[in-house]
Amino acid sequence: MKTLGHLINGNIDHSEGRTQDIFNPSTGEVGGQVRLASKSTVEEAIAAAEAAFPAWRNTPPIKRARVMFRFKQLLEEHADEIARLIGQEHGKICHDALGELQRGIENVEYACGAPELLKGEHSRNTGPGIDSWSEFQPLGVVAGITPFNFPAMVPLWMYPMAIACGNTFILKPSERDPTSTLFIAELLMEAGLPPGVMNVVNGDKEAVDTLLDDPRIQAVSFVGSTPIAEYIYGRAAANGKRCQALGGAKNHAIVMPDADMEYVANSLNGAAFGSSGERCMALSVAVAVGDDAADKLIAQMKQQMEGLKVGAYSNKDNDFGPLITGAHRDKVVGYIDSAEQQGAKVVVDGRNPQVAGGENGFFVGGTLIDGVTSDMTCYQEEIFGPVLLVMRAESMDAAMKLINDHEYGNGTCIYTRDGEAARYFSDHIQVGMVGINVPLPVPVAYHSFGGWKRSLFGDLSAYGPDAVRFYTRRKTITQRWPSAGLREGAQFAFPA
Amino acid sequence: MKTLGHLINGNIDHSEGRTQDIFNPSTGEVGGQVRLASKSTVEEAIAAAEAAFPAWRNTPPIKRARVMFRFKQLLEEHADEIARLIGQEHGKICHDALGELQRGIENVEYACGAPELLKGEHSRNTGPGIDSWSEFQPLGVVAGITPFNFPAMVPLWMYPMAIACGNTFILKPSERDPTSTLFIAELLMEAGLPPGVMNVVNGDKEAVDTLLDDPRIQAVSFVGSTPIAEYIYGRAAANGKRCQALGGAKNHAIVMPDADMEYVANSLNGAAFGSSGERCMALSVAVAVGDDAADKLIAQMKQQMEGLKVGAYSNKDNDFGPLITGAHRDKVVGYIDSAEQQGAKVVVDGRNPQVAGGENGFFVGGTLIDGVTSDMTCYQEEIFGPVLLVMRAESMDAAMKLINDHEYGNGTCIYTRDGEAARYFSDHIQVGMVGINVPLPVPVAYHSFGGWKRSLFGDLSAYGPDAVRFYTRRKTITQRWPSAGLREGAQFAFPA
Amino acid sequence: MKTLGHLINGNIDHSEGRTQDIFNPSTGEVGGQVRLASKSTVEEAIAAAEAAFPAWRNTPPIKRARVMFRFKQLLEEHADEIARLIGQEHGKICHDALGELQRGIENVEYACGAPELLKGEHSRNTGPGIDSWSEFQPLGVVAGITPFNFPAMVPLWMYPMAIACGNTFILKPSERDPTSTLFIAELLMEAGLPPGVMNVVNGDKEAVDTLLDDPRIQAVSFVGSTPIAEYIYGRAAANGKRCQALGGAKNHAIVMPDADMEYVANSLNGAAFGSSGERCMALSVAVAVGDDAADKLIAQMKQQMEGLKVGAYSNKDNDFGPLITGAHRDKVVGYIDSAEQQGAKVVVDGRNPQVAGGENGFFVGGTLIDGVTSDMTCYQEEIFGPVLLVMRAESMDAAMKLINDHEYGNGTCIYTRDGEAARYFSDHIQVGMVGINVPLPVPVAYHSFGGWKRSLFGDLSAYGPDAVRFYTRRKTITQRWPSAGLREGAQFAFPA
Amino acid sequence: MKTLGHLINGNIDHSEGRTQDIFNPSTGEVGGQVRLASKSTVEEAIAAAEAAFPAWRNTPPIKRARVMFRFKQLLEEHADEIARLIGQEHGKICHDALGELQRGIENVEYACGAPELLKGEHSRNTGPGIDSWSEFQPLGVVAGITPFNFPAMVPLWMYPMAIACGNTFILKPSERDPTSTLFIAELLMEAGLPPGVMNVVNGDKEAVDTLLDDPRIQAVSFVGSTPIAEYIYGRAAANGKRCQALGGAKNHAIVMPDADMEYVANSLNGAAFGSSGERCMALSVAVAVGDDAADKLIAQMKQQMEGLKVGAYSNKDNDFGPLITGAHRDKVVGYIDSAEQQGAKVVVDGRNPQVAGGENGFFVGGTLIDGVTSDMTCYQEEIFGPVLLVMRAESMDAAMKLINDHEYGNGTCIYTRDGEAARYFSDHIQVGMVGINVPLPVPVAYHSFGGWKRSLFGDLSAYGPDAVRFYTRRKTITQRWPSAGLREGAQFAFPA
Repeated sequence: MKTLGHLINGNIDHSEGRTQDIFNPSTGEVGGQVRLASKSTVEEAIAAAEAAFPAWRNTPPIKRARVMFRFKQLLEEHADEIARLIGQEHGKICHDALGELQRGIENVEYACGAPELLKGEHSRNTGPGIDSWSEFQPLGVVAGITPFNFPAMVPLWMYPMAIACGNTFILKPSERDPTSTLFIAELLMEAGLPPGVMNVVNGDKEAVDTLLDDPRIQAVSFVGSTPIAEYIYGRAAANGKRCQALGGAKNHAIVMPDADMEYVANSLNGAAFGSSGERCMALSVAVAVGDDAADKLIAQMKQQMEGLKVGAYSNKDNDFGPLITGAHRDKVVGYIDSAEQQGAKVVVDGRNPQVAGGENGFFVGGTLIDGVTSDMTCYQEEIFGPVLLVMRAESMDAAMKLINDHEYGNGTCIYTRDGEAARYFSDHIQVGMVGINVPLPVPVAYHSFGGWKRSLFGDLSAYGPDAVRFYTRRKTITQRWPSAGLREGAQFAFPA
Repeated sequence: MKTLGHLINGNIDHSEGRTQDIFNPSTGEVGGQVRLASKSTVEEAIAAAEAAFPAWRNTPPIKRARVMFRFKQLLEEHADEIARLIGQEHGKICHDALGELQRGIENVEYACGAPELLKGEHSRNTGPGIDSWSEFQPLGVVAGITPFNFPAMVPLWMYPMAIACGNTFILKPSERDPTSTLFIAELLMEAGLPPGVMNVVNGDKEAVDTLLDDPRIQAVSFVGSTPIAEYIYGRAAANGKRCQALGGAKNHAIVMPDADMEYVANSLNGAAFGSSGERCMALSVAVAVGDDAADKLIAQMKQQMEGLKVGAYSNKDNDFGPLITGAHRDKVVGYIDSAEQQGAKVVVDGRNPQVAGGENGFFVGGTLIDGVTSDMTCYQEEIFGPVLLVMRAESMDAAMKLINDHEYGNGTCIYTRDGEAARYFSDHIQVGMVGINVPLPVPVAYHSFGGWKRSLFGDLSAYGPDAVRFYTRRKTITQRWPSAGLREGAQFAFPA
Repeated sequence: MKTLGHLINGNIDHSEGRTQDIFNPSTGEVGGQVRLASKSTVEEAIAAAEAAFPAWRNTPPIKRARVMFRFKQLLEEHADEIARLIGQEHGKICHDALGELQRGIENVEYACGAPELLKGEHSRNTGPGIDSWSEFQPLGVVAGITPFNFPAMVPLWMYPMAIACGNTFILKPSERDPTSTLFIAELLMEAGLPPGVMNVVNGDKEAVDTLLDDPRIQAVSFVGSTPIAEYIYGRAAANGKRCQALGGAKNHAIVMPDADMEYVANSLNGAAFGSSGERCMALSVAVAVGDDAADKLIAQMKQQMEGLKVGAYSNKDNDFGPLITGAHRDKVVGYIDSAEQQGAKVVVDGRNPQVAGGENGFFVGGTLIDGVTSDMTCYQEEIFGPVLLVMRAESMDAAMKLINDHEYGNGTCIYTRDGEAARYFSDHIQVGMVGINVPLPVPVAYHSFGGWKRSLFGDLSAYGPDAVRFYTRRKTITQRWPSAGLREGAQFAFPA
Repeated sequence: MKTLGHLINGNIDHSEGRTQDIFNPSTGEVGGQVRLASKSTVEEAIAAAEAAFPAWRNTPPIKRARVMFRFKQLLEEHADEIARLIGQEHGKICHDALGELQRGIENVEYACGAPELLKGEHSRNTGPGIDSWSEFQPLGVVAGITPFNFPAMVPLWMYPMAIACGNTFILKPSERDPTSTLFIAELLMEAGLPPGVMNVVNGDKEAVDTLLDDPRIQAVSFVGSTPIAEYIYGRAAANGKRCQALGGAKNHAIVMPDADMEYVANSLNGAAFGSSGERCMALSVAVAVGDDAADKLIAQMKQQMEGLKVGAYSNKDNDFGPLITGAHRDKVVGYIDSAEQQGAKVVVDGRNPQVAGGENGFFVGGTLIDGVTSDMTCYQEEIFGPVLLVMRAESMDAAMKLINDHEYGNGTCIYTRDGEAARYFSDHIQVGMVGINVPLPVPVAYHSFGGWKRSLFGDLSAYGPDAVRFYTRRKTITQRWPSAGLREGAQFAFPA
């Protein structure tokens, strides 16, 4: 059985130490082990990255970008293999894994534009004979810490741009499903990246804390749950680092009475249950405006959910797969139980799915709960499972108030045909990513990804234009070339 | 004798409570008192700002900008009065205070461009029939905490842009010289700002901590010393806020042998001693490359320093004024003493200046110290006084190493005629603001201000384009209008 | 009776020569004369502008911008006087003239941002040790030729930005109503502009041709009718100049059945008849989708048009004023006649308005014509009078085809509540400025103004960001500082 | 012997009609024929492009960009074959042809960033409840007309970006060396472009005039000589089209006395003689400041030119190859003769080069002429051959005056170590592309290429950011969604 090591300075590292099992959640079986990096192993990676920095930062941006062009090509050539690796350890179905990968590749494509994106601003004659310009220089060694639910995509949000900007990188991926992540990093090396520019350390809290505390790490990008995001953000800041930490979500859709309910149910079906709801952009609450809209929505959902197929990643006819661990499966089931106990009605119950051959897998079927209110546990917390809550609001304003009062502000959506409703919603909703008839409003790679409120800590969003700013440091140069014969009086006043 | 209150919700507030003396540092006399806001007073200001936010954020940007147009006009009309208020409490000479104000006005001018600066990015057809765009929406209530050394300029770095972006603001200025700051804020109200959009609370740590901890404050901008900057940054982050905290500096100039020494000495004279060196961009270390350059520089400096006049703010023939407090004067003198004790040579000694009528003022004269080495206390710490250290390096690389090894990275400068030297320096020096033959490379208002290393904590610099990003939150909208007849299958895969 | 001269090199010039009457169209009386510049007078202005160029282009952008800040202030202080001057010679009602001026001032506000807008792009390390950046340098002497219908606004689209970019300017305004234009230009001189930077030559074709042919003129901006725009564009190009020439329009509104007809009629009332329809953005054709919508629209329009008041500029209760000349009044009446003859129905007839005291004024009342088809003269040509045509289309696609088939493509609008309709319309309509429920979709000053098809000749639109590009020339600098010891082999291959 | 056809609607077209010989200039032999498109053949191509436009403009930009990603890959895979095709018909040496191709590929790389580059600007609340945004929509069918000297690169400046922006394209390449151009276009089809999006018509003036006059062609890009550029620009404009027409050049280098003459001579050697000087950026005049600098430069040049090897393209040891035709060879020799006759001194004479095996080839050797003055024919006209003129100026200002007085303003360079000289030069020289110690300051693909004065007609430069603007049309949408209950008075005043 394989044991996954680290990628340090261009080589796979198998330092002795702690390991952890990697499961196949479709079967519940252990498929291998992953090494958990000790502090000294992480420090070795940091040292390699630090040593690689000066030459890489001096490499012209266009040459750095060309590594990304080759990387894109390699990712496309190995797409099926990557999807299989994702499926084995995460459980998501092939077509979903390919979708994830494609979204990751879009970030590589964006990083190919680094020479354009790194342009500074030049001003002639800020004063007489004085010019000023800005440059966006790389930071040095930067780190990324990524979650289990997108082992390919979320890392690709981070390091292609960080590296194209001239930084060197340490990635600490999820220890639940690290194999595809490492495989992809090796493709990047194959694309021509010098050793030490990209490093992967597998590990747990020891690795994370080392990255947070080591003074050589200049910046940390994190995606995960809100409690950990807060921890990361506070600790990185206490160490003087820049940090962006993306946390949890509770994404609501408002369903207006004028919406086409068949379209709504169709699109919610995918947005709520795809990838078992283990997405920070999963649409987990539908707020119908008016009982009539709610009843129609429930009816449509029931009908459409009859066709839902849950099962192993390898069968592409399945709609979604298992949850990541047995413990998480139990937690999701617990949320459904609590909803029932607190007075909601489980309209479609996924608690005991029949999955042929998956008796030991971590499956929960698509679940629809009606009559949810804002005081219920299932509403207040992020479930991260294939569970869609339905709520009823008297008006669009009441529906919006629900969303604006929730602690999270990642994604949201409105279903309507009405231009005024859409405009009012998008202007006033306190959420970072807003869909109009789009239930998963994940920005494309040339925009940036970020929630509001307790869904993101930091100034700058992930990927896209914001990533260029996050992974670089502004330098402003003010230049004057005195005439050879010039003699001037000293200036004591602040130059105006 | 006057007692300065707070500006809350458009009114001057004189809540009872603690007060603190305000000195005239040119005479050492107390000129008034300032009220120190209690927690509840600060909370009252926050509540006013929160109440004012919804209407202000809905005011079109062009209308917000027009308040800034009027504000600029009022600042220009009251320039002399503002300069006098600055001089009385800070001690800087009129022409210097006017220079500071002018730099502040430039930031108001920049804020007049808010409609342009707030533009988001729009993409048609991110997918078939799908559009996406970004908006930069205001954060809500934001706070600024500013230092004594630029009572007009540094607050103007912050609130004009914050407010033009649609935020409401709480300013906590320095309690040493708060009068000009408050006066300027009242001009902003006169320019037509609705009550509650701009608030000033005078105070000390109690006020600061209230701002850092109150969940209604969305972001904090700070300028001050590095230990406080670190405290602010860590505490704001622990509370989940965005924060930019600008700290101390030790700004070096490299003097190359090909530089025109008369020009160098002229410009260093102003950059080292102007405003008594109480500037985070003061040029406090000159590193001469080669002994020959050093000797010529020392000779020129001695000659030019003979003409330096230190004295009260009100005499515009003076070059610079007193330090801010008696305690700070003693600290600066202590650094000069320590340099002498640790082996450096005080070439020009400002420790006992003769200032007619200023016997009780907090004066230190211009001081030049030769033979400084990197192990001395006077080199390792920020002096913030009219003291210029001279060091000698064997080569340009050795001089650059000194700078790159220092904990601060705010400003720096090279004096040379040589294009290659200038380019190499500006590319490789680890400092955020770089001058080429410009000893105070403060970026103009349409660029941004920020140091590197322990001179700035955060992602984004102060004022200019970065301020727009700091004071706004990205929202990305993804929009699709389904055809009335459209029926589509649910998408379970992540949309690629 | 006054005779209006030229503004050349900071002075009012009264060279002898031809003159032309200026009418008060509200009374039909002659109010003064305007001098018509000869070729040599225009050349004198060009010479002044050429002489002023070098110093002005070397003036830092921020100082140029500050002239615009003062100009804005003067325009606001003199707004009523300017509105009166416009009204006397153009005929538009005070509130409309103030609206025009305010739109002009917005362009001055935008020009205040010149330092930001002129930034070039800087790239470090385009190759090893090689940097490149772009600058946007002024062109030299540029010219503007403007129409009678916006004597304040259209010139302000041009010269504030041209001048803020560092150019010097020759304006040739309409000889019909030149007084307000000249008055405003004098305010700009009062704001502190050096002599020769801004010049106004009144005149006719002789002046225009001189500007088009003189090799010292680098660029020409024109706004007027399409035949003249074509002439200007072709002749300027034949002389090697850059040119933007804005021509005529036929702006359609599509009225969808779901639109609120009261809102539609309200807004069309202003958009069709305001300023007597003498606007290139006037909404002159309403295309109702379905007869039902058409009938409702006609009914609403009839009702609302009953309240329309046409009369002299000086009575602010009037809704709109006279046409510019008697000849133009006759031409407009002729279009109404032709519509009737070709089978359309004049629902509201403005051909013989009763205007107390305006018996000799050039008035036509608001006119509504139903049953218009695309083969009628009144449809094919631009009327430029207070005439609204109503057409009927079977579908939205048929309505859009009408618009896309018309030779003009300036502005258009759709009235609907439906998001899908609005999106489809804005994507596929072949028109440069598109309104969604906005009948006069004139872009704000920080966007740019430009039609498509035969409404604009050139690459770049008027005002806003495009004006910065039109009035500057890109310069790209590639810089390398060879190491002192460097020796390299010659490169014969094209550097890759 | 092959006969080259056209690429129309995805197929190679061999319509009957006129043909023209294609020479191998290294041997003087005819290598094939090229068909010359008749008017009807060109119209067929235009029709194909027009038919392909609607679907292509609706294809999301990211999908259009992905065709460019694949195109880049194919170009790299076929680089050697392309270089051979270039060499056979143009004569340039392999390494030079590969350099040209690489520069072309950079433009493809840039076009891969189309989704980023096409972003419009979005403004929320331009007025209360009103939003505005701009889009950059494709024009339709656009044409490019390209010269013989860069058969791969110059077409690649144009169509990758035009096509990535959503246009369809007709290329009319040079009839002297069309084979590599067509081959490359076929690779683009292989990359997945739909038929009709890219078309190539070979031809002469008949084809050109058809493109200039056909109303379906929206825009024309041209690179060639100035007389033709003027013709193209004037005729396209007379037809109402947008046009950018790049013409001839006379590129000067100023050699300052402080320059390292060995470096200067090295770099001039390549810049003057590479590709036989048949480059619009060839450095053809060296202006030495002071006789001493001139004498040293001449001495260094003589020495370095001894090693110059002229010969056939296939031998990569050669430095440069033949001229394009016998007629052009004679013209270049004529310029050298005239220089001699008018008093200049031919220091190194390339008029009768000995090229083994190339007796019938169109060779001229590297030629150095001293004592050139501004009244000589060889100075006033563009030679486009391997001839470097040396002039002497008394001062830098005198040298700059020479450049600023010349009718062309394409490229220029200064050799110096002095920062002040470089800054003064780059600010004040009237040339579009400026090198500081860089003799061929061709902007990289993410900047834009364009000369000043009679070297470029039009507003926008070639490739880079300007190409995005040239190949798109701005559309500005202003949107308001009225509240359902809203009733407002009509607005007759112009909305302010």
